[in-house]
Amino acid sequence: MREAFAWPVRVYYEDTDTGGVVFYANYLKFFERARTEWLRSGGINQSLLADTHDVMFVVMSTAVDYHAPAKLDNELKLTVVVERLGRASVEFQQQAWRVDTGSADAAHGAIPILLATGRIKVACVDRHNMRPRAMPAQVLAFIKGCI
Amino acid sequence: MREAFAWPVRVYYEDTDTGGVVFYANYLKFFERARTEWLRSGGINQSLLADTHDVMFVVMSTAVDYHAPAKLDNELKLTVVVERLGRASVEFQQQAWRVDTGSADAAHGAIPILLATGRIKVACVDRHNMRPRAMPAQVLAFIKGCI
Amino acid sequence: MREAFAWPVRVYYEDTDTGGVVFYANYLKFFERARTEWLRSGGINQSLLADTHDVMFVVMSTAVDYHAPAKLDNELKLTVVVERLGRASVEFQQQAWRVDTGSADAAHGAIPILLATGRIKVACVDRHNMRPRAMPAQVLAFIKGCI
Amino acid sequence: MREAFAWPVRVYYEDTDTGGVVFYANYLKFFERARTEWLRSGGINQSLLADTHDVMFVVMSTAVDYHAPAKLDNELKLTVVVERLGRASVEFQQQAWRVDTGSADAAHGAIPILLATGRIKVACVDRHNMRPRAMPAQVLAFIKGCI
Repeated sequence: MREAFAWPVRVYYEDTDTGGVVFYANYLKFFERARTEWLRSGGINQSLLADTHDVMFVVMSTAVDYHAPAKLDNELKLTVVVERLGRASVEFQQQAWRVDTGSADAAHGAIPILLATGRIKVACVDRHNMRPRAMPAQVLAFIKGCI
Repeated sequence: MREAFAWPVRVYYEDTDTGGVVFYANYLKFFERARTEWLRSGGINQSLLADTHDVMFVVMSTAVDYHAPAKLDNELKLTVVVERLGRASVEFQQQAWRVDTGSADAAHGAIPILLATGRIKVACVDRHNMRPRAMPAQVLAFIKGCI
Repeated sequence: MREAFAWPVRVYYEDTDTGGVVFYANYLKFFERARTEWLRSGGINQSLLADTHDVMFVVMSTAVDYHAPAKLDNELKLTVVVERLGRASVEFQQQAWRVDTGSADAAHGAIPILLATGRIKVACVDRHNMRPRAMPAQVLAFIKGCI
Repeated sequence: MREAFAWPVRVYYEDTDTGGVVFYANYLKFFERARTEWLRSGGINQSLLADTHDVMFVVMSTAVDYHAPAKLDNELKLTVVVERLGRASVEFQQQAWRVDTGSADAAHGAIPILLATGRIKVACVDRHNMRPRAMPAQVLAFIKGCI
């Protein structure tokens, strides 16, 4: 089994709320950053994809379980695992981990803490009529190589 | 059966993305606005609750299915239905509907369109140690009256 | 002198940060909601404007002074005053006031508190080439009537 | 003269709006990320600062001029220059540059494009009563070394 793709995210003021933790909706942003960089690691740029193939990815469903909070200045690691691959859709399992060593909470040590688990379903659509479209061959090949 | 609580939300630039539609993560914000106003309709103010009872609500899990997009200037209606009530947790079923009559897309007429369905699980916790706490009697009574 | 247009905004979790107050960047969102609703009060819908006249408004500059913080559940009032009107640009003076009566801080009474003052410059541009364009006559007439 | 501190920021869907560009308010977030990382480059962590010195930084005013738009997938470079240093306040001049080489717009070549210029004034305050407080010696020393 391959290791999951991982992308670092730092928590800034913009990400937090008055409860003193990362606002739960923002994990969807963090998950998307990780998926985007995972695609980029395969040479796939979504802007170029739109221009050259007239397709874009849209999120069909999201499901997130929140296990523990993240705070200002925490370092997170966001992972990407492909759970299911269709011709025009992909289902991801993603996790957010706290891996920081330098924050006020660092007394907890270097053991990563699982913060949130997400299941995100994405569809490839024609960017003009929004109908499902088979993913371009390059994208499909990259994803298959990740499974 | 009671009618669902509904709260109006207008789509502004801040809510949209370069795909021309409301960014999917923002439905979690819209859902929360509706839950907050639903509580307020029962005389419950979360800031006061924190100050007087030392409790706060935290989101444990979210699951959203996206059915159709919303666009700039659309008028949405966000609904709140209690699906399950525990002593220290509540599970909601929420929907986002497009109900606009004045936008560029109004040619579609006045028939509401279902945009997104969410299932949001919220827990009542002690705001100092974040451990589960039974909801204050006033809150419990209000929610029971809504089922 | 006319009274300034005012638009109510409620503070939700999404608007706050770990400092316990509204995140300063979000006042730009509140200001824009007020400008949008001010235009709508004159029968002007920006989506329709884009479709019928191929123009859109873009923000050229923003300057905000922060005087006092807003907190969760506060009720704000956002005002819109036109300071300068050109053929293809408008300059606004906008203010955010706290006017809440029901929050935990309401002991301060009903005297509005000035939270932030903004000066926002907006240009009307062709939505295809982004070049300055004279505002449509309907828009110009509405704005002139507000000065 | 020293070279300005620079921090890379990538544009994701979350940053854009239906106009096809980065939503203007988000430059304030980008500027803050750069200031935060600039402090961190000097060994200063704002969470630790709050815990050990009971102080925090609050934004007093922001002024941003927008020169050119950024789009999805663009690579930005955010700079930080100290313009004025007081005992309890700092004034920054910050810029956002587009430096991408891999996006759909890369035909424009590798010449950086200035997107936005900001002037941000920040105050050091007691985190309990929010009154101005002289910056801790470590912070002052770091900033002086950057001028």
